[in-house]
Amino acid sequence: MAVAQDRLIEKNFFRSLEIPTPEFAPVDSLEDLEQAMASIGYPAILKSRRLGYDGKGQSMLKSEADLRPAWELLEGAPAIVEGFVPFDREVSVIAVRGVNGSMAFYPLSENLHRGGILRVARSCAGDAMQSQAEAYVSRLMDALGYVGVLALELFETGGRLIANEFAPRVHNSGHWTIEGAETSQFENHLRAILGLPLGSTAPVGKSAMVNFIGGLPEPQEVLALAQTHLHLYDKAPRKGRKVAHATVRAETPEQLSSLLEPLTVLADRVDDS
Amino acid sequence: MAVAQDRLIEKNFFRSLEIPTPEFAPVDSLEDLEQAMASIGYPAILKSRRLGYDGKGQSMLKSEADLRPAWELLEGAPAIVEGFVPFDREVSVIAVRGVNGSMAFYPLSENLHRGGILRVARSCAGDAMQSQAEAYVSRLMDALGYVGVLALELFETGGRLIANEFAPRVHNSGHWTIEGAETSQFENHLRAILGLPLGSTAPVGKSAMVNFIGGLPEPQEVLALAQTHLHLYDKAPRKGRKVAHATVRAETPEQLSSLLEPLTVLADRVDDS
Repeated sequence: MAVAQDRLIEKNFFRSLEIPTPEFAPVDSLEDLEQAMASIGYPAILKSRRLGYDGKGQSMLKSEADLRPAWELLEGAPAIVEGFVPFDREVSVIAVRGVNGSMAFYPLSENLHRGGILRVARSCAGDAMQSQAEAYVSRLMDALGYVGVLALELFETGGRLIANEFAPRVHNSGHWTIEGAETSQFENHLRAILGLPLGSTAPVGKSAMVNFIGGLPEPQEVLALAQTHLHLYDKAPRKGRKVAHATVRAETPEQLSSLLEPLTVLADRVDDS
Repeated sequence: MAVAQDRLIEKNFFRSLEIPTPEFAPVDSLEDLEQAMASIGYPAILKSRRLGYDGKGQSMLKSEADLRPAWELLEGAPAIVEGFVPFDREVSVIAVRGVNGSMAFYPLSENLHRGGILRVARSCAGDAMQSQAEAYVSRLMDALGYVGVLALELFETGGRLIANEFAPRVHNSGHWTIEGAETSQFENHLRAILGLPLGSTAPVGKSAMVNFIGGLPEPQEVLALAQTHLHLYDKAPRKGRKVAHATVRAETPEQLSSLLEPLTVLADRVDDS
């Protein structure tokens, strides 16, 4: 938990395991930030070391003029500056490790964010990056002696993977596993922490998940879409808050794309963020 | 409910809808029973009209010597005698009907009973009897103005279907739909009664369910089996009581059979009935 909750410790931990990361430097003052930017270069992202998620507490640095306002926004909180990775796509690998050290890995999720919030996660069985992602997340879980489900978020750029961050828990980008995998991330987390055998992470069809952010669609509109499964969180709608998701399961990638399209239209309609 | 709770009303209702049934006759006295058996012939089954399930309150009649003991066992309760159908197999069709009269049907379940209790239900996509079963259950649900999930149990004998009974609810023989269908019988029941669009009943792989009766296996033994999903009911074990089930999902019927085999061994081991 200590590693996952502090971005600086997390990045140093990745580095110690030879898991590639963006360039980074600790920032405890405006002077630190100015000095770091000389080597990291623009664009970059200034992040509080702790308590950030869904892009909160982050500022994009595009030029020197952004440094002071970004630093002041942090109100003195310890921070980290990271070089911006011009990624081709964002992926995550959801993995599970049992009490006895056995591990299993779901097919990569390809994730689309907007405003720092995950919009769409699409399962990618047979992805060319799968084995590289599994190698990194294995190293991470073994080093932590981790038991349970863990998600590692990665950037793909120029055919290689760079670690962004990890989450020591079931993850939003793995919600498609409820319908789209032989065993869901939730069941596998319970199997792991209870010392039971891990379940198969094999995909069941081709699937993708769409978040509903800030507001709920009419359930009948979602449920009228073929092969679509709605999950309501029973949370009061609030700007930028994930209040539900829907998962589409299809036979082929092409069918998935065509089933997904009307669902993303519904999600965009309620999205207020 | 009134129709489903009384076997005589139920059988007369089937007959009125031209859904084939075994031969049957009402029995309110030993004389009724003796008279009925002259036309029905042995073997036959004497059943209380109400409150029977899992084979309770039923007696097999193999010869005239069985009549008096079977009748006395009922302690004067109104009864029905039914000709025994020398069936090739038992199947059920799980169907759902929405508020607007729309209907959907799951692939037939092929059901294995022992001692009147369901042991194994296996999904049979593309079964030759599917359309006949759907025709009967449609007629039944329309006549009842039914909304929700309903199960119709049938005997197959000599290439035709004969109705045994129906259950106006989600059904044990449809538990495989949790993993083995695009939308489970439980979700479709809720969709139906809430006036939401019905979900697809298409199968997901080939699946079968095994009941655990009277006792629980070690969860780790079940979960160590590939592609097997365990559902515990949190019920105190008791002779003849269903306390859990497990569902296997496979790619092919052959794979299903081989995955199912060790599971039925575990189920037989705990079975005390």
